[in-house]
Amino acid sequence: MPDRAAPAAAGQLVWRGSGRLADGREIIYYDESPGSGRVSVPDTRDLTAEERPVPGPESGLRWDPLTGEWVIVAAQRQGRTFLPPAEHCPLDPSRPGRPTEIPAPDYDVVVFENRFPSLYGATAPGEDAPGGAGPAGGQNGSRAPAAGWAPAKPGQDGLISTARPAFGRCEVVCFTAEHEGSFADLPPRRVRTVLEAWADRSAALAAMPGIAQVFCFENRGEEIGVTLHHPHGQIYAYPFVTPRTAQLQAQASAHAAAGRGNLFDDVLAAEVAAGTRLVAGNGQWTAFVPAAARWPYEILIFPDRRVPDLPSLGEDQRSAFGPLYTDVLGRLRALFDGLPPYIAAWYQAPASGGQDRDRFALHLRVMSVRRAPGKLKYLAGSESAMGVWINDVVPETAAQRLRDAR
Amino acid sequence: MPDRAAPAAAGQLVWRGSGRLADGREIIYYDESPGSGRVSVPDTRDLTAEERPVPGPESGLRWDPLTGEWVIVAAQRQGRTFLPPAEHCPLDPSRPGRPTEIPAPDYDVVVFENRFPSLYGATAPGEDAPGGAGPAGGQNGSRAPAAGWAPAKPGQDGLISTARPAFGRCEVVCFTAEHEGSFADLPPRRVRTVLEAWADRSAALAAMPGIAQVFCFENRGEEIGVTLHHPHGQIYAYPFVTPRTAQLQAQASAHAAAGRGNLFDDVLAAEVAAGTRLVAGNGQWTAFVPAAARWPYEILIFPDRRVPDLPSLGEDQRSAFGPLYTDVLGRLRALFDGLPPYIAAWYQAPASGGQDRDRFALHLRVMSVRRAPGKLKYLAGSESAMGVWINDVVPETAAQRLRDAR
Repeated sequence: MPDRAAPAAAGQLVWRGSGRLADGREIIYYDESPGSGRVSVPDTRDLTAEERPVPGPESGLRWDPLTGEWVIVAAQRQGRTFLPPAEHCPLDPSRPGRPTEIPAPDYDVVVFENRFPSLYGATAPGEDAPGGAGPAGGQNGSRAPAAGWAPAKPGQDGLISTARPAFGRCEVVCFTAEHEGSFADLPPRRVRTVLEAWADRSAALAAMPGIAQVFCFENRGEEIGVTLHHPHGQIYAYPFVTPRTAQLQAQASAHAAAGRGNLFDDVLAAEVAAGTRLVAGNGQWTAFVPAAARWPYEILIFPDRRVPDLPSLGEDQRSAFGPLYTDVLGRLRALFDGLPPYIAAWYQAPASGGQDRDRFALHLRVMSVRRAPGKLKYLAGSESAMGVWINDVVPETAAQRLRDAR
Repeated sequence: MPDRAAPAAAGQLVWRGSGRLADGREIIYYDESPGSGRVSVPDTRDLTAEERPVPGPESGLRWDPLTGEWVIVAAQRQGRTFLPPAEHCPLDPSRPGRPTEIPAPDYDVVVFENRFPSLYGATAPGEDAPGGAGPAGGQNGSRAPAAGWAPAKPGQDGLISTARPAFGRCEVVCFTAEHEGSFADLPPRRVRTVLEAWADRSAALAAMPGIAQVFCFENRGEEIGVTLHHPHGQIYAYPFVTPRTAQLQAQASAHAAAGRGNLFDDVLAAEVAAGTRLVAGNGQWTAFVPAAARWPYEILIFPDRRVPDLPSLGEDQRSAFGPLYTDVLGRLRALFDGLPPYIAAWYQAPASGGQDRDRFALHLRVMSVRRAPGKLKYLAGSESAMGVWINDVVPETAAQRLRDAR
């Protein structure tokens, strides 16, 4: 495998090297110092491309005519690794006699293709799909979806129900080689490296033919189904714009069409003006509980200067993110006497989209499913069936508690 | 309290009587034989209207400008009854020395206003709000929302963020006086009585000024946060059309505008024609796993002849529902060796709406959160943050397993 190590976009803060695992999956090291040579360490496992858990023919994207949304059917994931004991963690660095998903004996931040992906087959322009895991999507470096993979809407082909291959890509992001700990424990330097990895992968995945949206996120806690304890996140590259993003875009578009300003700017300005739901801010980023929070502890984090996606963040914004975000997570931890289960989700503009894209505001949303120590927020009839959220915690109260928690 | 007992719409199958609990909440008995006198049994508890858990001033509806949806903030519910021991079940009939929410010593089916409501204040046309629990919405019997309660969109009043009182109504439906058991255990005669209660309350609530949508549902199982084991369901009367309903209406409208037939009819016909996802049918109702099922075991149950809501169901449809639905629940129970946690949700046309209303098709959706024995489906990043569901169970496989389970 060629060592394509090259400096990442942010100058000499991060050194990137890309290689392949034994079954053909891509692995990318983001090192905090040059010359680690990690990318040259071979994957010694007896894995072949043929052994990759390839989705069965019944897996794929299904069009729901009743809602106008795509659903991913991913039956092959039922056999995925579930809460292994610490000594068998696949996200630790490899040790002699115990090879893991990461061949190197140590790492700072590492990204690799998920062994049990929900979406698969996307590759960089001009590159072959690795390991024969699926038809290659990337001919000619075109931004147009590869033929046969485009999730055409059924209205276009006259069908009520439409199925498509589960095209896209799923990656794993390991935040630290340490098995114990959490994102909240990362030093600012490491958070910066993770941010560089997110931005770098967002740009790379968005450039893959057929990819419409890149989603970087972290699921934390067994209560929300996390199957590996090692601090890590995920990146999904979808072949369609997700319903939530489409909804945000539609609202922003309607707001602009009504002759008002930018919706995201207006929301942020209104929150700063109100002040009652602010949690933290540092001159580059502002964290607040939204007025209509759906989750008991839900926090939106916006850069004060709007950018559409992670790759567009400036140096000042990148360096200021870590201190602000770990402060917010620290408050959640202090409030619950231990980090509660949460989902942290980056909303970015779709991979293409002109004016809609410029209008979008990158932001991070942290949602805790805990409503009080030991009590979880469940999604029952009103939420799951009707889409109407009921929040038992007043947003202003949640913000006050977070401001007070240290 | 006046005994307003009167025959329900379905002839002599059900005898209805409506009274008031000690704190002013309405209670309605649906008896399977006449002359029970249950409605005359007084509520002997030392409850007054002043002691009702009235929402604090910070509770209410919050407009989310980023999504264009309403969120309910219901802080007062944090103190609600949580999994009491069987001897303190508030849904059992009253016994000497142990008064419950139901004053009568026995009942068939009973409906009453929730003591810990998320939505409150709606009353029948011309009727005063009971117990001073909130401003009355019902002047002059008008269908227009009462002044001050209408959830105007912020675009109409120039605000980014808008709050409104949590107007509406929440009711509890007890399916049986027996503490143990489940809906799946109900005899067909009882299911019919529950159906009559749902239809009767749907009509009554939809007629209340300011109510836009009535939602009858059952949450079953601790895994989804059910706080009382006694077999029961709930009814929510919302002051707005819910996001899911609006989505179904938009899809049906677009389908019709494209010169195609009725969306719901076409979906049902396509499922019958495909056959691979059918679960059960009896000539009046058809149950199938949708092609784009979001949940591991998700079943849609449509009447073969489309009607917009529960009150519109004909006698043939009403009498055929119980056998079909308990058959479906029995299959879920057989498959999981015990009834899995589920949400059962009735989708009805909004309370008003002209052509959109006629186009809507009443249906029941049963969603189990269990994907395999002992394994739950969690909503993590892709579902909760982006609205993209990932289903680990192939819909055709789920349907086959349900067909085979007896």
